[in-house]
Amino acid sequence: MPSIFTRIILGEIPCHKVYQDSHVLAMLDINPIAPGHTLVIPTEPAETLDKLSDDSAAAIGRLLPRLCRAVCKATGCNAYNVLQNNGSGAHQAVMHVHFHIIPKPDPSRGLGIGWPASKLDNAAGTDLAKSIARALAG
Amino acid sequence: MPSIFTRIILGEIPCHKVYQDSHVLAMLDINPIAPGHTLVIPTEPAETLDKLSDDSAAAIGRLLPRLCRAVCKATGCNAYNVLQNNGSGAHQAVMHVHFHIIPKPDPSRGLGIGWPASKLDNAAGTDLAKSIARALAG
Repeated sequence: MPSIFTRIILGEIPCHKVYQDSHVLAMLDINPIAPGHTLVIPTEPAETLDKLSDDSAAAIGRLLPRLCRAVCKATGCNAYNVLQNNGSGAHQAVMHVHFHIIPKPDPSRGLGIGWPASKLDNAAGTDLAKSIARALAG
Repeated sequence: MPSIFTRIILGEIPCHKVYQDSHVLAMLDINPIAPGHTLVIPTEPAETLDKLSDDSAAAIGRLLPRLCRAVCKATGCNAYNVLQNNGSGAHQAVMHVHFHIIPKPDPSRGLGIGWPASKLDNAAGTDLAKSIARALAG
């Protein structure tokens, strides 16, 4: 079953398109949390970022600075968040990778952020960093 | 005045390093909001994503899927958010581009998300998409 984003990429469903090439489509979010709220999606139908190919991820990465500049210029807002959610527990609604570019014009609009910060224990941090580095190499 | 991240890249300040190459450094956040909270930073000292070079942004993009897989594997948590903040109004604290990879093990830990959604007016959306596309091309 193709996601709604795949159907948009195929042209079966319309969108407010900002940009498209063979790897990436960018469009306005139809339920924006601030004016200029833009979605950047790979044409590759990966569900989550960990499943996306390196080439698609690099293509999105390369495009982000340009797209952010364009969103800032068009909205006149220079503060913004880039957010990419993976898994329903982490606020992902459409199971096709998407990066949000979300202007933050004032505290009431744009992304609200809850930040339950703790302090990293030094010994635990050393072990955890090694464990992630091993997983990366393996 | 170099940022704390530039000083870490130069080796003047220690970190719990996960990965480093000529373009990118990844390390644990010392004030994690969930276990495995990882920062991915360009060695290029750009303040915000819109000021980052295409090549640095592509290098970070290319690395993100691998890093996300490694963080998921090491933490056992498959839901996560990738967040990148630009400007103090948008929760940016260190003025050097950084992407957060933040596991979401349960509702009380990880990124809290406020989402003041609205509905995009069709005519306004058409104009705004054109305006962003023009800024992108210009």
